[in-house]
Amino acid sequence: MKHLSMRATFFLLALTMFTTPAYSAEQSRPVPSPPAAQSPVVHPDRKITFTLRAPEARNVAVAGGDGLGIGPFSMTKDPDGLWSVTTPPAVPGFHYYWFVLDGVQVNDPASETFFGYGKPTGGVEVPDPGGDFYAIKDVPHGEVREKTYFSKTTGAWRRALVYTPPDYDRNIKTRYPVLFLQHGAGENETGWTRQGRAQFILDNLIAAGKAKPMIVVMDRGYATPDTPDFRQQNMQVAFSAFEKVIVDDLIPTIDVSYRTIADREHRALAGLSMGGMQTFFIASHHLDKFGYLASLSGPMVRNASLEKLSEITIQGPFDTKVAYGGMFADPAAFNQRVRLLWIGAGGAEPEMFLTSIGGAVSALKAAGVQLVYYESDGTAHEWQTWRRGLNDLAPRLFR
Amino acid sequence: MKHLSMRATFFLLALTMFTTPAYSAEQSRPVPSPPAAQSPVVHPDRKITFTLRAPEARNVAVAGGDGLGIGPFSMTKDPDGLWSVTTPPAVPGFHYYWFVLDGVQVNDPASETFFGYGKPTGGVEVPDPGGDFYAIKDVPHGEVREKTYFSKTTGAWRRALVYTPPDYDRNIKTRYPVLFLQHGAGENETGWTRQGRAQFILDNLIAAGKAKPMIVVMDRGYATPDTPDFRQQNMQVAFSAFEKVIVDDLIPTIDVSYRTIADREHRALAGLSMGGMQTFFIASHHLDKFGYLASLSGPMVRNASLEKLSEITIQGPFDTKVAYGGMFADPAAFNQRVRLLWIGAGGAEPEMFLTSIGGAVSALKAAGVQLVYYESDGTAHEWQTWRRGLNDLAPRLFR
Repeated sequence: MKHLSMRATFFLLALTMFTTPAYSAEQSRPVPSPPAAQSPVVHPDRKITFTLRAPEARNVAVAGGDGLGIGPFSMTKDPDGLWSVTTPPAVPGFHYYWFVLDGVQVNDPASETFFGYGKPTGGVEVPDPGGDFYAIKDVPHGEVREKTYFSKTTGAWRRALVYTPPDYDRNIKTRYPVLFLQHGAGENETGWTRQGRAQFILDNLIAAGKAKPMIVVMDRGYATPDTPDFRQQNMQVAFSAFEKVIVDDLIPTIDVSYRTIADREHRALAGLSMGGMQTFFIASHHLDKFGYLASLSGPMVRNASLEKLSEITIQGPFDTKVAYGGMFADPAAFNQRVRLLWIGAGGAEPEMFLTSIGGAVSALKAAGVQLVYYESDGTAHEWQTWRRGLNDLAPRLFR
Repeated sequence: MKHLSMRATFFLLALTMFTTPAYSAEQSRPVPSPPAAQSPVVHPDRKITFTLRAPEARNVAVAGGDGLGIGPFSMTKDPDGLWSVTTPPAVPGFHYYWFVLDGVQVNDPASETFFGYGKPTGGVEVPDPGGDFYAIKDVPHGEVREKTYFSKTTGAWRRALVYTPPDYDRNIKTRYPVLFLQHGAGENETGWTRQGRAQFILDNLIAAGKAKPMIVVMDRGYATPDTPDFRQQNMQVAFSAFEKVIVDDLIPTIDVSYRTIADREHRALAGLSMGGMQTFFIASHHLDKFGYLASLSGPMVRNASLEKLSEITIQGPFDTKVAYGGMFADPAAFNQRVRLLWIGAGGAEPEMFLTSIGGAVSALKAAGVQLVYYESDGTAHEWQTWRRGLNDLAPRLFR
């Protein structure tokens, strides 16, 4: 016992204190924290106090998602080496955050991580008085399943997350409609269930009879083959690769693996931010496959094509005749073909997003395109907007 | 567009380079890395080079799991502010690791995180020439399902992860045996599938006809109610709370939710390290519920009781008459009642573990207790030992 490795030492330490109260409540709170987490503390006025023990550090700041406020926020050190700062009142919901520790962006050791910004990132949950719709409640719960499947498009195995509604395994003769639901840039297939709590939103809606029981499929919105020069690729190439995965690989996999109703009248495509752009890009080629379309905070591209990244514009007048390959050019035909067009945004999103989305919504309406516009009051280009968006969207699907 | 928030800036950046080659291959590699990850680099001789860009930092080191070697390893800075170190050859498999950056333990921003040591922790995968058994192969794949259930024991919602074997949804009349499989101290219910790749090990074994199709249930091994003085609790209290969750809440939930064969002849209990201790602790009260028992690298407690933490001994002679409540006291009765007793360890584990486990195995054999002892050649108190252990164990279950 003279030499104890790190692991052995931890093991013995753990036995003396491994009961972890934060765990037992994990699933009843939006953002779980590891045991003994002291930071961050969210105050009743939605100010947040962040702390980090770093006696040797010279500069520490906290920064994060839009809804946290305009950071980074410099922290100050007390005599014990504990750095802290209290940020201005944040908007409600989930915010990514991180520390900048002597110039290096690192996660708070006290936070669980969530995939955002292209890597694991810390998160803080600011309670929303109206947030009951995404709480875990005493209702029947569906499952979230990891589905491993092979993509001929990429030549690699992929993982989709599949929400099956409550009692899917009991109602063995029932077939269900399917919502394909995509994350945003820098996130991955885990976003909608971990940050977005989509499974609990659906559980609650279904239990209340507000949404039809449905299957929800979440995949990662990246599918470009591994090439050394991937940074040279443009959005057209990237979106096209993912389009092929959805259409050629994922939909057939889902339809053969689950009891779906495998037609466009029972298949929806939706996504947030970049996922919203992908939704319209893919739909513009495949209206035969999707009867319901939704974009949550997706900037609306003005161009006729996404071919050249340098030419893509999301600002300026939205030309309904040419945007997204002319999908909206004939409003009457579009209205007849698409059973729901849903567009949403958060009221506190950066102007770039609101202008792009608002302008497109106005232009589409003026052209006679039927759509539902939903605005989440006071929330940022973040998950609270998208939780609320899904809560508004799901009841409108498959009607 | 004058002011762009972090998120908006990232969004635009992401559109120029969001194709992420590392993603498409994630599921075919044991440890996925976020895009553009440069560190760590595992060399053919199993040395590992770790790098971190931190121009302002004064001290950076890397440390991690047992199999990485005796750290921490000090890193040196080049003129561009890039810190690096190449560590001695590591043992094969998955190793947790982290940086110590000016005195603060932080994860490598280039690594995915895995729950270990009570919080998200980075991980590096050292290839094993014999590691084919946990690769994703062209065989039928099962699913890993998140099962939300309410625990009367803790008064809170919990999440179990449930592996269902390939074609579970097709063979709708088939019922399956169940393995309850626990993680180690500081880990949680995600360990066996994320670090351990249990789902792919089972897929491969089942496809080869080596293991019977089975359901595997993984829960978090903590269940103590949230009390302010939790550090005062002892192992008896902690293990007992989890025992109540398994027996009173989890088993009934699984048996009502899945097509199990709900008897002890078709129910196994196993765990690694602390989970192995929990296995024998729980089994000693509930041999009526479990017909198969396995401990992977679980220190063997010598005491008659786990009542007082300060008195627990895992070193010294193993008294088969009193250990684990006398469960082994009557070898003939035990042999008749328990269809498999399986004990495993890694050959390169710290002496503390090897001595405890080896001594108990010898004493049990000498007393006439039938058991299978499995030793993983050259691996540490880490996941490669447990992947190999599961690969040896699963074929022996439910025979």
